[in-house]
Amino acid sequence: MRATHIPAACGLALLLIALAPTARGQDSDAAIAHKLRDTALKDDWGYRFLETLTTTVGQRLAGTEAEARAATWAEATLKSAGFDEVHRESFPITAWVRGREEASVVSPSPQRLVVTALGGSVATTPEGITAEIAVFHLYSDLLRAAPGSLAGKIAVVTEAMPRVMDGASYGAANPIRRLGPSEAAKRGAIAYLHRSLGTDNHRLAHAGATNYEADAPRIPAAALSVPDAEQLDRLAARGKVRVKLVLTPTEDASAKSWTVSAEIKGSERPDEIVLIGAHLDSWDLGTGAIDDGAGDAIVAGAARLIAALKPHPKRTLRVVLFGAEEMNYSGPAYAKMHAEEAPHIALAAESDFGARNIYAFLAPPGAAETPFIHSLADTLTPLGIFLAREPAQNSGDDIAPLHAAGVPVIAMRQNGLDYFDIHHTADDTFDKVDPHELAQNIAAWAAMTYLAAQSDLDFRKLAANASH
Amino acid sequence: MRATHIPAACGLALLLIALAPTARGQDSDAAIAHKLRDTALKDDWGYRFLETLTTTVGQRLAGTEAEARAATWAEATLKSAGFDEVHRESFPITAWVRGREEASVVSPSPQRLVVTALGGSVATTPEGITAEIAVFHLYSDLLRAAPGSLAGKIAVVTEAMPRVMDGASYGAANPIRRLGPSEAAKRGAIAYLHRSLGTDNHRLAHAGATNYEADAPRIPAAALSVPDAEQLDRLAARGKVRVKLVLTPTEDASAKSWTVSAEIKGSERPDEIVLIGAHLDSWDLGTGAIDDGAGDAIVAGAARLIAALKPHPKRTLRVVLFGAEEMNYSGPAYAKMHAEEAPHIALAAESDFGARNIYAFLAPPGAAETPFIHSLADTLTPLGIFLAREPAQNSGDDIAPLHAAGVPVIAMRQNGLDYFDIHHTADDTFDKVDPHELAQNIAAWAAMTYLAAQSDLDFRKLAANASH
Repeated sequence: MRATHIPAACGLALLLIALAPTARGQDSDAAIAHKLRDTALKDDWGYRFLETLTTTVGQRLAGTEAEARAATWAEATLKSAGFDEVHRESFPITAWVRGREEASVVSPSPQRLVVTALGGSVATTPEGITAEIAVFHLYSDLLRAAPGSLAGKIAVVTEAMPRVMDGASYGAANPIRRLGPSEAAKRGAIAYLHRSLGTDNHRLAHAGATNYEADAPRIPAAALSVPDAEQLDRLAARGKVRVKLVLTPTEDASAKSWTVSAEIKGSERPDEIVLIGAHLDSWDLGTGAIDDGAGDAIVAGAARLIAALKPHPKRTLRVVLFGAEEMNYSGPAYAKMHAEEAPHIALAAESDFGARNIYAFLAPPGAAETPFIHSLADTLTPLGIFLAREPAQNSGDDIAPLHAAGVPVIAMRQNGLDYFDIHHTADDTFDKVDPHELAQNIAAWAAMTYLAAQSDLDFRKLAANASH
Repeated sequence: MRATHIPAACGLALLLIALAPTARGQDSDAAIAHKLRDTALKDDWGYRFLETLTTTVGQRLAGTEAEARAATWAEATLKSAGFDEVHRESFPITAWVRGREEASVVSPSPQRLVVTALGGSVATTPEGITAEIAVFHLYSDLLRAAPGSLAGKIAVVTEAMPRVMDGASYGAANPIRRLGPSEAAKRGAIAYLHRSLGTDNHRLAHAGATNYEADAPRIPAAALSVPDAEQLDRLAARGKVRVKLVLTPTEDASAKSWTVSAEIKGSERPDEIVLIGAHLDSWDLGTGAIDDGAGDAIVAGAARLIAALKPHPKRTLRVVLFGAEEMNYSGPAYAKMHAEEAPHIALAAESDFGARNIYAFLAPPGAAETPFIHSLADTLTPLGIFLAREPAQNSGDDIAPLHAAGVPVIAMRQNGLDYFDIHHTADDTFDKVDPHELAQNIAAWAAMTYLAAQSDLDFRKLAANASH
């Protein structure tokens, strides 16, 4: 899809016209939610937001000049979008910057392998590591390997991640990337490769952060593209294989990241906050369109439509574009910086699963049988969205620490069947986003956020009662 | 798809059993063609041939050690496959070997671009070229640009290639890659980039040879991945864009390439040859599974089943695995080396369009209403293959010079809807091939080749009569 020339937005004008005949106060909350939804479906502000972010900023690796440029751009963009207050705040991080990453089969048949270093990986020497590989078709096979059994070898895990709609397989496979390097090192391995946590069959490796354990040597670690992992499976089935690996990432312990926030002051209970967020940083291989530029466009696009309502909803609405999520800083850093605010956050939600359509939503615990949820379900059903049976528990790394501090959450569930074809790869670019599906997201978030900010429910009390 | 463990072939055994009850001579030619077809559908020799070639050799760039390794492997493999005679022959070529290839937007917003050098491209200096780009949405816009108008600029053509089933759009788009660099240079450009001749949306550029014209400066030339070309479209719509390009390919004018041939001697007219071919070399980015390892597997797999027939078909059957097709040497080199044989080649055909199913076949000129074609159509209809209305004219670069020297051709038409998603990219790997579709190809080629070799028709005379 090409989108070089996108016509100017007319969403706000449409909304103002839609709301004009029946001024607020005459319209019911449900009627306003319906109008927000229908306006969002015809609006292209979010799509243009995403196009501009991914085109004029591009990749936004945490702690780099590019992430700072994204924060500056986002602050300026939100300031011109009708919010009451917009600001940036910084926090310190250790930045990790990719260097050269080269891998090849040295013997029996020389050939190039496509890899990408795991975020946080230590470097090899500039000349690289050359060693025999030990292939494990299952991660559990690696865990069963005896201490010392991988001495001097490059451990390779080729377990495949299943394709599922809600992305649950990613959580199940995550230890392969997060814990694999240390588990291999404990058994003597000098480097670690794993089949990308991806469902595609392209020669593009999937990046992602790893976590070294304190009690294991830190060994260089990278993901293989799926076809390259299969090639090693086939070669290893024939005999010994020697692989060369060169990774030269660097770290900067004095870097900083940014959070960008925008608020719509509540008209009746401004001290109560409904917080919706997404993360602004991205991996460096693509331009972060589905992860998580889309989420930024969704929460900002939804809030922008609500900002145009007069009077504003009862509660304050805050949009947060988090920094350094991919490097595991965003949620803890925000929760720490805003610890004293946590008791005032009535409800939180996060969009970080791409740009495909939403097919379900999850009510806050104890809230399923409330007018808020009934009204929301009525608004979302025409968008092909149903109320899931289970309540929302946690909906992403950005708000998890707030949730742990007692903030109730609500969640949208997106179609993620092909999310892990693209996730964390060079393929995460603007052309992958369908404008109609993005608009469906914004429509659902606008309705949900408006109704939550307008609601008189005490979600904390409902959650507390539900847990008894 | 994973294919680490493929069970041993049982195709030949099946064929021998199938043919046993009714020895040749009792069976009609049509009955034998049907049995060849049905045996091929159950046989996995071709799939294993392709798996081994792409795994143990990998990429096979013309004139390199890897192509020579492929020729050695192919000769040994065909020698063990029941042919009467197998041999290699070499011919001189200038090899072109890829170096570094890096591109990035320098301003307004620094970001990496995915490119791959065109085959035959000259190098930049090691420091690269940095210049403003001039974007042309259509190649014809570049051709309309005035001499000198691109002085000091990098010309960028972003025209998209349509997705069509028979691949005809590739021929239409080919001048963009073949002629674009010289056309841009004539107008003053100092480098040339074009949107890959591909139908995918991945961050993988499509390689391919270019041809410099004698009357234009030779400028460095590369293909952009499709998303990167679209990114430049979007950036250029906003203002001036400066791009840096580094290409460091090298040439070796004293290289050689190889042709591997295998024959089944004709039982009645051994001096008449039916020649079927594919090319053994590949681009260096992938492992040449669909281009053209699949073709190698198809023609070798079909001929191997025919080699098991006793007595052999009347005419001699020759399988040719051509060398250096991607660098434009294969057809001319073979036609030159075998010029004296051309009058004895009764019919030729080539498989070089991937591994998807065949859906049509094209009769040699003047042969549509012959028992050979009627019998072939009867055999192929159950495979979902119909007789196309138009006669075969030319079916690929390997046999075009033979055809020009008077050799009649027959052709199979494959489903190429997604061929140019993968063609000439790093994605051209074994996992992209469906074993059932590959077997359908081998079945059709076995039947076609057998009936042609067994036929008494003089295809040259039919073609001559048809042209009057």
